[in-house]
Amino acid sequence: MNNPLDGIDSTAKPLSEQIALQLRGMIFDQHRFQPGDRLPDERSLAIEMGVSRTSLREAIKILVAGGVLVIRRGVGTFVSETPGKVEDPFGFAYAEDKKQLLSDWYQCRLIIESEAMELVAKNAADEELEGLEELARRQGDMISAAHKGNPDGYSFMELDREFHSALAQATHSAVMGRVLPALHEWVYFGAAIGEYPRLSRQMEENARKSHLSIARFLKMRDGKGANLAMRYHMLQALEDVERP
Amino acid sequence: MNNPLDGIDSTAKPLSEQIALQLRGMIFDQHRFQPGDRLPDERSLAIEMGVSRTSLREAIKILVAGGVLVIRRGVGTFVSETPGKVEDPFGFAYAEDKKQLLSDWYQCRLIIESEAMELVAKNAADEELEGLEELARRQGDMISAAHKGNPDGYSFMELDREFHSALAQATHSAVMGRVLPALHEWVYFGAAIGEYPRLSRQMEENARKSHLSIARFLKMRDGKGANLAMRYHMLQALEDVERP
Repeated sequence: MNNPLDGIDSTAKPLSEQIALQLRGMIFDQHRFQPGDRLPDERSLAIEMGVSRTSLREAIKILVAGGVLVIRRGVGTFVSETPGKVEDPFGFAYAEDKKQLLSDWYQCRLIIESEAMELVAKNAADEELEGLEELARRQGDMISAAHKGNPDGYSFMELDREFHSALAQATHSAVMGRVLPALHEWVYFGAAIGEYPRLSRQMEENARKSHLSIARFLKMRDGKGANLAMRYHMLQALEDVERP
Repeated sequence: MNNPLDGIDSTAKPLSEQIALQLRGMIFDQHRFQPGDRLPDERSLAIEMGVSRTSLREAIKILVAGGVLVIRRGVGTFVSETPGKVEDPFGFAYAEDKKQLLSDWYQCRLIIESEAMELVAKNAADEELEGLEELARRQGDMISAAHKGNPDGYSFMELDREFHSALAQATHSAVMGRVLPALHEWVYFGAAIGEYPRLSRQMEENARKSHLSIARFLKMRDGKGANLAMRYHMLQALEDVERP
């Protein structure tokens, strides 16, 4: 049997976690169970997997805690409609000092997104790079219009997220394309920024200029230039939130 | 009222999402509801928040999907015991090409962890840096012992994760300290590496030498040196998995 989990070093893991790993494989690798599907009844599944019902029950609890399975009492155990998707993947909600968290967030983005620009310069298609420049120009126009008192349907946070997400996708990295949007989706960012209302105009001007500059370096496939432009963009945001 | 969510730019969001954001604030910022607590009944909560029961119900669904709330039919709505914690925060399980995912994973770690070393060199306490060197030495001895046929209680994956997690904590960044462990916890890493059994010895030797070298640069507070040592460490792993 060609089970990708066979080779895993799981000797140190309790039995229930090993069974959870197998079940996970049936869902995510073998696609035997789809989102919303009901699992076979506990007895048959335990027999099929060659494990005790007690261990299987423990494994199911692990996957319920992880958001992969859902138990509907009296009905059965189902694969979640959105397996593994969560609200606050990094547990930022548990950080004590939210002001520090905001600085650390920009610092972390400075590190990751600057270097990621070299992946974009190397991997993106020509059309993607033209699309990025077009997006930066259109969004810059929206910011200018908003500052001239014409904020129709304008949400800076959405617009900012849209540009950075387009960059994340343009890395053509399955990992960057998932990790960066997870960082950008951070709902507490909105709450934290909301505590600095005086900043919004500064940040919008910063985005207007920097996004266009980043897009232009990328269009010339100048990864080092785009890296520096992103670094400058994040450093400005970082200094804005850290200024007393 | 000093509600940190007041300033958030939520004009573009549907009402149910705005209510979800408020409920989230009651849980994570105001700590009015703790993990495991039951929410007040729908009717009183809707009246208190000045919203319709229909909108409140929609908001609750959003937070259930996000793993923050749990509905126990006939009993009530509860704050999850592990609000927001998930199995596969990045949705790696949905990536089609797992071999590519593994390369992208090392590439992404190369970018993030190398640069993070300069944060460690800047922020870590002296004792932490000594602890890191001690950890790298002890783990190196365990790898050598395992290669001499003495693998007692030895799990390389656990040991590798322990060293990289200690580095993540030593950044003293609330964001790095959460994002890096989330990357390391990736269960599919184990499954993917399991497909390359010929690699394990190479990777263990790589870890044995590189971890010690990284720890030594850090002990001298040489962030650039530690950055380069980490880059070399990840590049070796990347070349190992990419070699046909």
